[in-house]
Amino acid sequence: MAHDKVAVRKILDRIKSEGRASLSAPEGKLVCEAYGIAVPKEGVATTAADAAKIAAGMGFPVVLKIVSPEILHKTEAGGVLVGVKSADEVQKGFDTIMSNAKKYDAKAKLHGVQVQHMLVGGQEVIIGAVTDPSFGKLVAFGLGGILVEVLKDITFRLAPATREDALSMLDGIAAAEILKGVRGTDPVNRDALAGMIENVSRLISDFPEIAEMDLNPVFATKSGATAADVRIVVDFNAAPARYRPSHEDIVRDMNRIMKPDAVAVIGASSEEGKIGNSVMKNLINGGYQGEIYPINPSAVEIMGRKAYKSVKDVPGKIDVAVFAIPAKFVAQALIEVGEKKIPGAVLIPSGFAETGNVEGQKQIQEIGRKYGVRLMGPNIYGFYYTWKNLCATFCTAYNVKGHAALSSQSGGIGMAIIGFSRSAKMGVSAIVGLGNKSDIDEDDLLTFFEQDDNTTIIAQHCEDLKDGRAFAEVAKRVSKKKPVVVLKAGRTAMGARAASSHTGALAGNDKIYEDVLKQSGVIRARSLRDLLEFARAIPVLPTPKGENIVIITGAGGSGVLLSDAVVDNNLSLMAMPPDLDAAFRKFIPPFGAAGNPVDITGAEPPKTYQNTVRLGLEDPRIHALILGYWHTIITPPMVFAKIMVEVVEEMRAKGIEKPVVASLAGDVEVEEAAEYLFDHGIPAYPYSTEMPVAVLGAKYKWARGAGLI
Amino acid sequence: MAHDKVAVRKILDRIKSEGRASLSAPEGKLVCEAYGIAVPKEGVATTAADAAKIAAGMGFPVVLKIVSPEILHKTEAGGVLVGVKSADEVQKGFDTIMSNAKKYDAKAKLHGVQVQHMLVGGQEVIIGAVTDPSFGKLVAFGLGGILVEVLKDITFRLAPATREDALSMLDGIAAAEILKGVRGTDPVNRDALAGMIENVSRLISDFPEIAEMDLNPVFATKSGATAADVRIVVDFNAAPARYRPSHEDIVRDMNRIMKPDAVAVIGASSEEGKIGNSVMKNLINGGYQGEIYPINPSAVEIMGRKAYKSVKDVPGKIDVAVFAIPAKFVAQALIEVGEKKIPGAVLIPSGFAETGNVEGQKQIQEIGRKYGVRLMGPNIYGFYYTWKNLCATFCTAYNVKGHAALSSQSGGIGMAIIGFSRSAKMGVSAIVGLGNKSDIDEDDLLTFFEQDDNTTIIAQHCEDLKDGRAFAEVAKRVSKKKPVVVLKAGRTAMGARAASSHTGALAGNDKIYEDVLKQSGVIRARSLRDLLEFARAIPVLPTPKGENIVIITGAGGSGVLLSDAVVDNNLSLMAMPPDLDAAFRKFIPPFGAAGNPVDITGAEPPKTYQNTVRLGLEDPRIHALILGYWHTIITPPMVFAKIMVEVVEEMRAKGIEKPVVASLAGDVEVEEAAEYLFDHGIPAYPYSTEMPVAVLGAKYKWARGAGLI
Repeated sequence: MAHDKVAVRKILDRIKSEGRASLSAPEGKLVCEAYGIAVPKEGVATTAADAAKIAAGMGFPVVLKIVSPEILHKTEAGGVLVGVKSADEVQKGFDTIMSNAKKYDAKAKLHGVQVQHMLVGGQEVIIGAVTDPSFGKLVAFGLGGILVEVLKDITFRLAPATREDALSMLDGIAAAEILKGVRGTDPVNRDALAGMIENVSRLISDFPEIAEMDLNPVFATKSGATAADVRIVVDFNAAPARYRPSHEDIVRDMNRIMKPDAVAVIGASSEEGKIGNSVMKNLINGGYQGEIYPINPSAVEIMGRKAYKSVKDVPGKIDVAVFAIPAKFVAQALIEVGEKKIPGAVLIPSGFAETGNVEGQKQIQEIGRKYGVRLMGPNIYGFYYTWKNLCATFCTAYNVKGHAALSSQSGGIGMAIIGFSRSAKMGVSAIVGLGNKSDIDEDDLLTFFEQDDNTTIIAQHCEDLKDGRAFAEVAKRVSKKKPVVVLKAGRTAMGARAASSHTGALAGNDKIYEDVLKQSGVIRARSLRDLLEFARAIPVLPTPKGENIVIITGAGGSGVLLSDAVVDNNLSLMAMPPDLDAAFRKFIPPFGAAGNPVDITGAEPPKTYQNTVRLGLEDPRIHALILGYWHTIITPPMVFAKIMVEVVEEMRAKGIEKPVVASLAGDVEVEEAAEYLFDHGIPAYPYSTEMPVAVLGAKYKWARGAGLI
Repeated sequence: MAHDKVAVRKILDRIKSEGRASLSAPEGKLVCEAYGIAVPKEGVATTAADAAKIAAGMGFPVVLKIVSPEILHKTEAGGVLVGVKSADEVQKGFDTIMSNAKKYDAKAKLHGVQVQHMLVGGQEVIIGAVTDPSFGKLVAFGLGGILVEVLKDITFRLAPATREDALSMLDGIAAAEILKGVRGTDPVNRDALAGMIENVSRLISDFPEIAEMDLNPVFATKSGATAADVRIVVDFNAAPARYRPSHEDIVRDMNRIMKPDAVAVIGASSEEGKIGNSVMKNLINGGYQGEIYPINPSAVEIMGRKAYKSVKDVPGKIDVAVFAIPAKFVAQALIEVGEKKIPGAVLIPSGFAETGNVEGQKQIQEIGRKYGVRLMGPNIYGFYYTWKNLCATFCTAYNVKGHAALSSQSGGIGMAIIGFSRSAKMGVSAIVGLGNKSDIDEDDLLTFFEQDDNTTIIAQHCEDLKDGRAFAEVAKRVSKKKPVVVLKAGRTAMGARAASSHTGALAGNDKIYEDVLKQSGVIRARSLRDLLEFARAIPVLPTPKGENIVIITGAGGSGVLLSDAVVDNNLSLMAMPPDLDAAFRKFIPPFGAAGNPVDITGAEPPKTYQNTVRLGLEDPRIHALILGYWHTIITPPMVFAKIMVEVVEEMRAKGIEKPVVASLAGDVEVEEAAEYLFDHGIPAYPYSTEMPVAVLGAKYKWARGAGLI
């Protein structure tokens, strides 16, 4: 569909010149027509015969309305007829309306009668658009009437939306089934609806001054979709686009910052208890092998290293400067960092925007931009990059190398990440504090971790996304390669926001984050614990090759709860083929239940777990296993754990790798068994039937989003 | 509203005698009228004048229909007119219909014309009834049309429902707001709707042969509610009521079983590895102080205790017999238990219904009933009652005394309970395995724990409720005194069931459990971990006296996540009064945020936590506190924990007791701090912002249900 940008530009220019904030209904229609958005057909007739001809051309029924600049209250003047069903009736109607109008106001100028196609039947839907401060232009879709108003059943996508995005919106509402036709009604024309969504999304992308838009209702029938009412709100003072360095610049600078060969510590100190002392200790004791330059105007040497008055006095190249000085000294030191051409500053100090010092933060942002210094923070704990043994932080050191990269906007949550990691012995590649996000934010980290070979999963806690659109674009690309998990805090606090349009009012909740993160392939964690557990388990699990999941359980009771969790996590239990059912039955007692879950019953020896799990791994129709272990004297926890690892490793040696997770029901010895299993590639959880399935579900969500299954 | 039982009985008797399974529309109407359920007014006219008079009496518009036994297809015969709007039109319509009918079939006997009030406007709703195999008669309510069909937005209550139950149903659907009037429509008449729900629920309770019922649609307007269509399905072969001992009998027998003075072990053994040996060891080593009688025909003495061939040979009284013999010997031994007048048998052996031996299970049920022996199991691990140091089980012993009583239907879940309890040092009063539930079930346990002074909370895992109605009745009473938490497994496995009515088809999901458990005041756990954590934390928390919750946090990030959790758990943050806000501000840095959460910021000393928490406890307007701790050098975890306990104990000494929960963000030392806090009455969780709020939410749910706030 060709879009007539010139026509729209002309209308918008007029609106702007007239200082208006919204379009009239006829203007809205013209804009729609220019973008291939169907609106009811209409025409103005000056004679009865003309009216009948126009009506016949659009099909019946029609609505007739007097056209007269003097008659503002058409209905009162007897100037409106609805549901006119034939050419004959139209002719009569024309005459009636004209004579009514004359009677009503003899002096009124009568331009004729407007003939408008009357929309009947079909499903009422709403298509709209909003401008979000973080995500920019979004297109919205929902069912008209009470469903969208009362149940807030609406879905959003970044604009412009592809045809695929648009089609996914039709399935993205709770009442999606209605569009397929219920109670004997026809299904809607999905192509026509998706096409209209696409066109709306293109329109608002082409014309940023279109702030909000409502097509409400749109009548969707089996043959097409027509927007009965159009409302367009404009804003010619749109916010300027946010500055973004180029992809190459981000990658180059972030690599030097995150994997530096030389670190300067501004405010390094020998004095116990000082932040500058903690940072020095963490760098040295953490085993960092690059150069460490303490910067302190009043010291000669700190912890055995020569100290410098300024970074400018350091003879060699510096990749990153860690700031451990009070806020008020940051700006001056940052200028020196810029002059020394250091690409990154890690700003631990607080005392900026978070305490109301917005100006101070703006000042350092400007310095950073001027000198090309990327800023991490301020108001952060710093960061860790384990593969360089780098603890550029004043918190405790952390050294368990692994492949999960975590970040947090909040320092408290950062401490929880470190504590959980240490407690669970979770291997991480990096932990990063983002704090006030004056510059470096989640998408910079995604861009770095995307190409960082030590990282296979990225898990981020955030409270807001300063540039949601940039994040979504980067996440969409990165999540195709590596799972991206996000815990978005402040889900419930957004509240409704003031808006001129219907769609705008509905946007004031968490649904935009929900939909856009999904559109970007991001796995959304619902809780802090989920974020942490997903980061720990997802890299351990191989990628499943299909949707067929089998539960093998010693405890029938666990089997039932695990089945519940399978449904809750949008996974599906394999319908067991008869031959496979028979094969499982060979290994289990006659009263055990095959089918799925495979219930081997509680009193079985280790061999039964071994045989059934081996079968589950060997049969190519099965793609993932969930184990339900029941602690018994005959198969104690560590015996179970060791035999499971054996089978999995035996299969791995044959090239068979499938995700296996385990729920352990038993006395405290199961805790040790769970740890052993986890260490050997089987995420296992004591006293929980939910968590093993939740982490498997997260892996599946990613694999589906990345198009791997 | 008087109910005319005689009229209904007469109609049902006729249906029965005619061998029919459902009522005709006119029969359905008569039944409705007998129970005060409004149906459209109607009458049969034999003259045009008569028709006009009848119509005027009911109000316009009306529907006119030919009445003739010969004319089956009324519309085809031109025998139906809808939307007739005046007395004049009715007269003309009468003539038209009669003449059309004559033309259509000259031989047809014409009885006249039926005049029926035509319902227009208002909100279409559905009121229905079903018979559930476990819960019996239930009444249902939902919105008509797509909402109930596509979104399954329907709610159930046990019948008969009180007025309060009925009113709660109007708020119990997702689209409840619609009933209050949206888009300028009038609100429905809540009393009329609730009255109709009550009447339906009374009708199906009075006549158990009414199996299913649909009033669909019911037109609900601001002035009343009228059922436009009635469908009633009957079943004269209803299942007989389940046998239930009297309350006194249950209490008397369960007290002897759960707190026995003398235990017999049938199948006691000296041989290591035998179940009968494990049971003996657990009894003796567990420190049980009552009599222990080993029963074994081929032993003289077992573990230092005189052995008997049969319980009948034991000289003294026995309160409970623990069975540790193969299934095939159980029946005979049970007869002897009966003859010895022992009130309870703990049937550890498997090999009954769960392995297909349904007959064997039926046999022992009959023996139990005959001799008045209550049966626990079969197919269980046994039970623990810590305050008697009683471990009547073959599993490992458990001895941490406390006030949570737990039970599980599954042995695997029982082992998880024991493992979790030991790991978390959770104090319990009892842990009970219910297994096949041939006799003793969840409501027997509720009845016992209700009057057991050592128990303050009851947490149950179940897969089904054999007598859901009995459970609901008991739970409703008990939950007023002690929190009842239920993990219902198999939530998602029920699927749709075959049903003749619309309501019946909608009942085939978990919604019935959801609604009835709520109606009974039960706190539903969503996961195994929730069941366990609720059991652990709820008894520790004092009962809140109101809904005003305040978050006090060192980490702003935790504050945001805790606020999310508050909303998720249906709790509410107190709107901070200005004077209280000012009082908090005195203790926190100028850039800290008062309001709620109270953000004291991260770098504060222990004193700040102490001052703000003391204020939160002292101010009578605040009813509960959620603490967000951030691990810093200035306030290390154990320092925080000790100072918090100090403040709480200081207040307790002054008679101030409020629920306080804590989320701890920090390095691994927070685990020890969490344990210390929990031990001192402050449920605390490391690395989780969700769990502390979830347990507080569970306590609130109970307190609200019990009418305490």
